[in-house]
Amino acid sequence: MFEKLEHLGIAVKNIAESDKLFKKLLGDTFYKQEEVESEGVKTAFYDGGNTKIELLEATTEGSPIKKFIDKKGEGLHHIAFEVDDIHKRMEELRNDGFRLLNEKPKPGADNKLICFIHPKDTNGILIELCMDKDKELNEEDLKTT
Amino acid sequence: MFEKLEHLGIAVKNIAESDKLFKKLLGDTFYKQEEVESEGVKTAFYDGGNTKIELLEATTEGSPIKKFIDKKGEGLHHIAFEVDDIHKRMEELRNDGFRLLNEKPKPGADNKLICFIHPKDTNGILIELCMDKDKELNEEDLKTT
Repeated sequence: MFEKLEHLGIAVKNIAESDKLFKKLLGDTFYKQEEVESEGVKTAFYDGGNTKIELLEATTEGSPIKKFIDKKGEGLHHIAFEVDDIHKRMEELRNDGFRLLNEKPKPGADNKLICFIHPKDTNGILIELCMDKDKELNEEDLKTT
Repeated sequence: MFEKLEHLGIAVKNIAESDKLFKKLLGDTFYKQEEVESEGVKTAFYDGGNTKIELLEATTEGSPIKKFIDKKGEGLHHIAFEVDDIHKRMEELRNDGFRLLNEKPKPGADNKLICFIHPKDTNGILIELCMDKDKELNEEDLKTT
């Protein structure tokens, strides 16, 4: 089951420009910036109180964020739920008939393993599952000791 | 400033139908249903762990939720931040150059006073400010004693 709303993902054209807005709204600038080359995105994380706000800016022409903005404009892109065991949860979702956008968990920003559910199966909402990478490492460590 | 992400608002065609999906995703059905006649919506609230998930279904032809779904399909509709003093926060936002969609706080679902910021001023995101109605009543009480 989902543990909590880990973050909200927001597609923006330019993080530096949008930072002026989010600084006004949330009272502070981002606390971290990170590029995820494999996804063609640059990210910035804000403290939203009980959850994180992640801004996403495209870094390549083929970036999913560029495609999203070209089609729909800037705005809410995805919601991410933290899960306890991403492998187990992906298996459960598949058994429940959900289509997943990646076969295996893949590396995301913020030291996470992530997976997306097909928005056609979730009322048009792009939902990400995420789990701390360290959690996986610890479990792997346990298996080998 | 915003206190926390109070809820995520999701536009759906039919709450009863979408409940099957959210029950699978969140592990439980909604804990409350409520109609807000003035807004032309029926709502259902789910426990999302650290935040609430609100489904919104249109009840009238002129409902903003019907217009949203006709234009964009089902999906993420708004994000709502809890504020300590909605009057003060609205004034601050106006002074910061934000356009607000309502002049004064108006009644929303879940015993709240609410106000929306124009999405053209917030990177395409419809942001709601909300405050418990009881809070206002208490403050009014204090003023008259």
